[in-house]
Amino acid sequence: MASIFTKIINREIPGQIVAEDDHHIAFLDINPLVEGHTLIVPKKEVDYIFDLSDEEYVALQLFAKKVAAGIKAAIPCLRIGVAVIGLEVPHTHIHLVPLNDMDDINFSRPKLNPSAEELSQTKEKIAEQL
Amino acid sequence: MASIFTKIINREIPGQIVAEDDHHIAFLDINPLVEGHTLIVPKKEVDYIFDLSDEEYVALQLFAKKVAAGIKAAIPCLRIGVAVIGLEVPHTHIHLVPLNDMDDINFSRPKLNPSAEELSQTKEKIAEQL
Repeated sequence: MASIFTKIINREIPGQIVAEDDHHIAFLDINPLVEGHTLIVPKKEVDYIFDLSDEEYVALQLFAKKVAAGIKAAIPCLRIGVAVIGLEVPHTHIHLVPLNDMDDINFSRPKLNPSAEELSQTKEKIAEQL
Repeated sequence: MASIFTKIINREIPGQIVAEDDHHIAFLDINPLVEGHTLIVPKKEVDYIFDLSDEEYVALQLFAKKVAAGIKAAIPCLRIGVAVIGLEVPHTHIHLVPLNDMDDINFSRPKLNPSAEELSQTKEKIAEQL
């Protein structure tokens, strides 16, 4: 069965897509830790990031680097934090999280629940930097 | 002033080093979230990971991928989680954390305080997989 991320890639379900190329996509987490929390996903559905080939892994990491620069330009923060956990959705994804404080990347804290309008505004801010 | 990581690289202070090449080093976090929690550090002292050149960034990420495989072979876990935060030590470092649960990579929870003997045993287990 297609992962929820593959459904976003295929436009079967909506996503706030900030960047995309032939092999990767970046979209906002709909329950972000902070505004601008973005997921970086390879279009190929591989569960564990370290099971990607070196070539696929490098391409994904470089795509993440580019998107991180766009998020940092759009969202006031000290830097962009990175997390790869992957115990919930079995499709590799890198979390990029604007950090002003260490606790901004604590996945055990309550998530935000922005409106569709708020997510769309955040997406526009980031996409225009990319 | 040299960062604490540069002092480990230069053997000015001790570190439980599990892997090293010309440009990178991997050593155990002395206050790990879980056993096997390892830091991946470029020898070049750059504060923010996304300020590395593409070439330096890719080399660091590939070194991390190799070390992650060694940790996974040595420490019972579901997978290796990744975090880059960097608000505390101004020298780029990637955390690799063996995960059995999402909360294993929650940096707000109390850290472990293993003995030098325990750290040394963990280092040996990982190093022999690399």
